[in-house]
Amino acid sequence: MADDQTNRWVGDALVTIEGGEPVHVALERSLRAAVREGRLRPGDPLPPSRALARDLGVSRWVVTQAYGALVAEGALDARTGAGTRVAATSWPTLTATRAVAPPVQPRPAFDLGPGVPDLRHLPRAAWVAAVRTAVASATPGDLVAPDPRGVPALRQALADRLAVTRAVLVDADAVVVTHGAADGMTRLASALRAAGHDSVLVEDPSWPRLRDVAAAAGLRPVPVPVDADGVDTDALVAAAGRTGARVALVTPSHQFPVGAALAPARREALVRWARSVDGVVVEDDYDAEFRYDRRPVAALRALAPDRVALLGSLSKTLAAGFGVGWLVPPDDVPAARAGLDVRTSAPPSLHQLACAALLADGAYDRHLRSARARYRRRRAALLVALERHLPGLPVTGLSAGLHVVLGLPAGVDENRVARLAARRDVRAMPAARYRIAPVASAPALVVGYGNLVDARLDEAVARLAAAVAEAT
Amino acid sequence: MADDQTNRWVGDALVTIEGGEPVHVALERSLRAAVREGRLRPGDPLPPSRALARDLGVSRWVVTQAYGALVAEGALDARTGAGTRVAATSWPTLTATRAVAPPVQPRPAFDLGPGVPDLRHLPRAAWVAAVRTAVASATPGDLVAPDPRGVPALRQALADRLAVTRAVLVDADAVVVTHGAADGMTRLASALRAAGHDSVLVEDPSWPRLRDVAAAAGLRPVPVPVDADGVDTDALVAAAGRTGARVALVTPSHQFPVGAALAPARREALVRWARSVDGVVVEDDYDAEFRYDRRPVAALRALAPDRVALLGSLSKTLAAGFGVGWLVPPDDVPAARAGLDVRTSAPPSLHQLACAALLADGAYDRHLRSARARYRRRRAALLVALERHLPGLPVTGLSAGLHVVLGLPAGVDENRVARLAARRDVRAMPAARYRIAPVASAPALVVGYGNLVDARLDEAVARLAAAVAEAT
Repeated sequence: MADDQTNRWVGDALVTIEGGEPVHVALERSLRAAVREGRLRPGDPLPPSRALARDLGVSRWVVTQAYGALVAEGALDARTGAGTRVAATSWPTLTATRAVAPPVQPRPAFDLGPGVPDLRHLPRAAWVAAVRTAVASATPGDLVAPDPRGVPALRQALADRLAVTRAVLVDADAVVVTHGAADGMTRLASALRAAGHDSVLVEDPSWPRLRDVAAAAGLRPVPVPVDADGVDTDALVAAAGRTGARVALVTPSHQFPVGAALAPARREALVRWARSVDGVVVEDDYDAEFRYDRRPVAALRALAPDRVALLGSLSKTLAAGFGVGWLVPPDDVPAARAGLDVRTSAPPSLHQLACAALLADGAYDRHLRSARARYRRRRAALLVALERHLPGLPVTGLSAGLHVVLGLPAGVDENRVARLAARRDVRAMPAARYRIAPVASAPALVVGYGNLVDARLDEAVARLAAAVAEAT
Repeated sequence: MADDQTNRWVGDALVTIEGGEPVHVALERSLRAAVREGRLRPGDPLPPSRALARDLGVSRWVVTQAYGALVAEGALDARTGAGTRVAATSWPTLTATRAVAPPVQPRPAFDLGPGVPDLRHLPRAAWVAAVRTAVASATPGDLVAPDPRGVPALRQALADRLAVTRAVLVDADAVVVTHGAADGMTRLASALRAAGHDSVLVEDPSWPRLRDVAAAAGLRPVPVPVDADGVDTDALVAAAGRTGARVALVTPSHQFPVGAALAPARREALVRWARSVDGVVVEDDYDAEFRYDRRPVAALRALAPDRVALLGSLSKTLAAGFGVGWLVPPDDVPAARAGLDVRTSAPPSLHQLACAALLADGAYDRHLRSARARYRRRRAALLVALERHLPGLPVTGLSAGLHVVLGLPAGVDENRVARLAARRDVRAMPAARYRIAPVASAPALVVGYGNLVDARLDEAVARLAAAVAEAT
């Protein structure tokens, strides 16, 4: 209010003291702003405190307090005998410290991108309840000096769950909580790099992020082809022999994006290879919870804990925003357990405790059961819609996960289809997006159904079909 | 119940089918356990499915389903013509994959360790409410593809807060959310190492963790002495000249552990030095919110955003278990902004959104106000108790933060006092714990009062005094 406001000139600077805060604080703020905005310049003298106090109609204490604060922070200089001046080290004006923002990708109305879970059905109430449990039960140890490998309660809950759902028997002590699968891969890759590894065999095609973080950590990706039985282990062994690579990153349960399960003989071959070369297999168990036609195949890790590291996360079962994953290093590769040093940070322990509560009280299982039913239904509806609007095109991939692969007519450019679909507000991924080696392969799209409302599925596929028709 | 249980021998293995789960699932589980526990061995033949089905009194489908699942995961082999056998790649038994656990440090009854906030007064209900706000308001972007630099809402809330409480004017885009101050230092140090820096000037004494992570990232710590005006900038400039170091890590608001504020002339000298050598000053603003005798001095960053990086966290104001910090890189050092790559993980975005809600709705401010009042009171009570039980010993450090420095009588061994105190269930830190160079200095203890109940303060100090008396 105007009545509460006092204005005075100090040099060229209008000092404004507003009501509602202590007068010395208001004066300090006001002088700081004058310096910062360049109305008071380096070297400018300030009035003696007694004079300014009289001018402003305040006590001298008010002025000495404000001057003192600004001297202490370096904005003003108070040299004995020279009075108070604006410091020579001038205060900066507000500069634009802008980092380069990543391009904002507007989400299309019909998002058929893969790997996005259904965000409408997150267990929101259960999560709030789990957080309540966590804040009530956190120990001083959890709150003050959290274990960088994760809080004991969550590591135990994950070990219990891995035993039941993945046939992975592991001591809670061997489970490391991470920020997600990519973080787990980062830690493993750093540890293996430090132990002398310099390359990693990766599936081609595959999810780019994990091979990117491995590359950033110093493991050069060596592509190995994939077919309907998963990664080609003969080709893998050959590539390993050629390059000396002794680390392999694979998706045995549900190859991404091809959608195959790794055949039993190949599982054995992979393990035999790893044992024969003192190697490591990294199993990205990315959507192990979502198999619709049968119970999931046990993890490869169950077959060979001596050689297989397991990576998992809550990113597909809940959402990436939960920011929690796990890493189980191989038992017999000490180097792979070295991925923790003084720099490692686990997710917030309060948040981990909430995850542990969610897992332990059954809320997570209930969520997964209803998610499985929902995705199974939606996958079936997608197949019906594809058959209706794009009859005869091959749809491949296990009845699992959050995507299928749609083969396009021979000669059609998959990138052009994706662009034409985008114009119709539909997002679907050209399969080549996930390939490494530039080999000619049949055109295809990776079509996700995780986060699309059932009611929009038919319209989404109709639009996609129009794009295919235009491109053909 | 016994009535629900079917037992049959398969080779040497007792197969137990319990009620309450689908029979084929029970059979699969039971066979897997038999293989894993070594009751069925590699190469052992399994009965033909028809025979086992008859034995168990189940349909043949049940057995083929169970066999199929175990073949798919590699536990059994089903070679055409050879029947089904246990796979040659034997299943491992549960091996002890034990990582080395950090030693459990039992918390003493009277914990006078520094840097631990009051855990009894965490804003638990406000946190649950903030999480509720977060789950209700999270956008698909936050949940699916969180920005590795932090969610926009939290970066904005932190920028707003830094302006008000630290006189740091910064665009939200320039604030990076970290896992804590050590994580911020790790990122900065990695970026600076990549840009060619190989050493960092550090205060001696200082908090070991930040210099440790800098060292782990490749910046060799160069100690610089501290006195009652904070870090000795003449010595710093000399050490920089001697070693070529152009990065300095300092605590200008409240030096840890000495408890000094960096004198105004030294602030200017530090900035002048950084500008003259194209250097970087890293300001660890670790307990900026807790000053009891006056409002906190503005951050050094406010004086020279071109050269000063700011590190902060919620670890002292709330608790380390909140796992959130911030980093504001210097405006004019592009290299220092490079600490983000594909491997970077921010805290869970849901958790960040809850932090943003806590900051934005005033709950955090209310918490800080009551925390300040509580610590001010407790500090005064500590001084009274020290004067009563250890009269005449010097107590130094600003009226700020969560600790004071207690000088011990000349000639007393501070480590011995700490050990004798520990026997009396009191934890206090020998000051030498924080020193780098092995210089002779007056014996002292760092005495924290953050997480001790007021009612136990006098008893804690009485026990400490007994330890001092025994050591004298």
